[in-house]
Amino acid sequence: MKIRSQDEEALLNKIRRAAQGTAQSSTIRTVSLGIGDDAALFRPRAGHETILTCDWFLEGTHFLREKHPPDGIGWKCLARALSDVAAMGGTPRCFLLSLALPASHTGSWLDRFLGGLRRASRKFQCVLAGGDTTRNKKILINVTVIGELPAGRAALRSGARPGDILYVSGRLGEAELGLRLLKQSPETVKGSNRLLRTHCYPEPRLALGQWLTKNRLASAMMDISDGLSSDLPRLCTASGVGVRLDSTRIPLARISETDRRRGFNSLQLALHGGDDYELLFTVPRRLMSRIPESFQGVCLTAIGEITRNRKVLLLRDDRSEQLLVARGWDPFR
Amino acid sequence: MKIRSQDEEALLNKIRRAAQGTAQSSTIRTVSLGIGDDAALFRPRAGHETILTCDWFLEGTHFLREKHPPDGIGWKCLARALSDVAAMGGTPRCFLLSLALPASHTGSWLDRFLGGLRRASRKFQCVLAGGDTTRNKKILINVTVIGELPAGRAALRSGARPGDILYVSGRLGEAELGLRLLKQSPETVKGSNRLLRTHCYPEPRLALGQWLTKNRLASAMMDISDGLSSDLPRLCTASGVGVRLDSTRIPLARISETDRRRGFNSLQLALHGGDDYELLFTVPRRLMSRIPESFQGVCLTAIGEITRNRKVLLLRDDRSEQLLVARGWDPFR
Repeated sequence: MKIRSQDEEALLNKIRRAAQGTAQSSTIRTVSLGIGDDAALFRPRAGHETILTCDWFLEGTHFLREKHPPDGIGWKCLARALSDVAAMGGTPRCFLLSLALPASHTGSWLDRFLGGLRRASRKFQCVLAGGDTTRNKKILINVTVIGELPAGRAALRSGARPGDILYVSGRLGEAELGLRLLKQSPETVKGSNRLLRTHCYPEPRLALGQWLTKNRLASAMMDISDGLSSDLPRLCTASGVGVRLDSTRIPLARISETDRRRGFNSLQLALHGGDDYELLFTVPRRLMSRIPESFQGVCLTAIGEITRNRKVLLLRDDRSEQLLVARGWDPFR
Repeated sequence: MKIRSQDEEALLNKIRRAAQGTAQSSTIRTVSLGIGDDAALFRPRAGHETILTCDWFLEGTHFLREKHPPDGIGWKCLARALSDVAAMGGTPRCFLLSLALPASHTGSWLDRFLGGLRRASRKFQCVLAGGDTTRNKKILINVTVIGELPAGRAALRSGARPGDILYVSGRLGEAELGLRLLKQSPETVKGSNRLLRTHCYPEPRLALGQWLTKNRLASAMMDISDGLSSDLPRLCTASGVGVRLDSTRIPLARISETDRRRGFNSLQLALHGGDDYELLFTVPRRLMSRIPESFQGVCLTAIGEITRNRKVLLLRDDRSEQLLVARGWDPFR
């Protein structure tokens, strides 16, 4: 992370202090040179591959300045990038933060943003190693995460085979419901609201991804970020297979009677809602018995079967089949 | 790089084709998994450290949509991030491209942008491994470069010692002059204009940085991106030293009589102009004889001496001294 003017230097000092709060004894060794030089230096482990992923998190597209709590923005910009590391089965090591801010947001907004970022960084043991800052009218965030895993062990999207069983972690659609409640609310929704928490503070399924790959249980894996109906076809395309998805088995958000009356449909939310950050993975049938009903408190559910023909089919509760249409999150639509 | 909707898929196919154009036999082995999964996989070399750096390149702040040629934007967004790898003495391996575009720019603008990016990628042997795309009204670019160098060999900003000689590569101020000509011109300036080329197509000093660190000649090093008057104090602060900079020795841009009459001053451009992407490095006095006058056609010039007192002094042509005030590029000013 480069250091610039007086103003920028003050900003960077804040970020640097936040970064110091993220350093763990193990990560201090991992990152041999952090903020303050032209670049960061990272010491890879012998016999490991490095996982590289980056994610936009932009005001107006991915969050609303006036609606989303700053510490939630800080948490989520890292957590969602970490979800890609979880989807490979890897362990996060460090991250780079690119931040563009209006001058009005370098005070308490930034403090709260960095607070949420630091909490996520500590919880998921991923240290801030560097980045870049500049000024911009809108808040722009880009996070690059560097992770690791033993060479050759990554879970790819391309490994699903006909007959494999499709699993998903957690419940789908809760984050989308949280977002809609947030948008509809005239004021900031209380942080104690469970759905809002799910939307603002997603938990990347790192331990699950690592356990699945370490035990070579998942033939294919990806995370669901845009919505099941958009992401599942990508796994099928990468693997050259199709799927029969059983709508009656998808773990749905628990919707209150009030929200149901407001027109929210839990199956539609689960199929097309974004921001779940759950893992979608396939397991060879002979290994099914090794998949527990839940892993560290997160339910694991068999929701379909991989097929030879390349169609993505949804089995409805009357047992009729229909083609599943991708209607998840899409920035270009 | 994640794959999303039909529209986004078309966009990503373009980027993927451009990426294929960047793959070298050596880098194919380096990046074991590229675009199309949740993340990219990189195989680090044994005994090497990984260099991590990222850079914003934003419309309105770093380039002008109507003025800058798209292929120059593609070239420069990578070249300037590579300059940070050069400043550590490292070798680039791969990069991640985060691109946010208006729908109007996914056609010929994108093609030309990717053309410039691919040329830089080939020339500097740095393969596109992944990234993220989204839509935005303004063009937003963020590039993360991953480089390598033998563990413990990085040239840092913090190693300058009193008595060391300060060197700079190339001529300073040409890129700034190119930018001003571009801004003043009612039309697009011709690509054959040397100053414009220097501004739009900077050449990161990778070979020089590698040679200096391999031969352990540089006690400290950084790249000049914001301007000498802004960057030099950073090297001094990091090293806990001062400097006496000799204004008569700074290699200046050659300014035409016309431009001189228009008020351009070559010393002011060299001191405060941005976007040079030259290397600033210090050499212990006993190693001075090993620094050639030029390296691969780029002149290397001794421009000052590191001092014990922490002042950044400019020695003027009448041999009087003045404190050098940082007046380089600063997004927060």
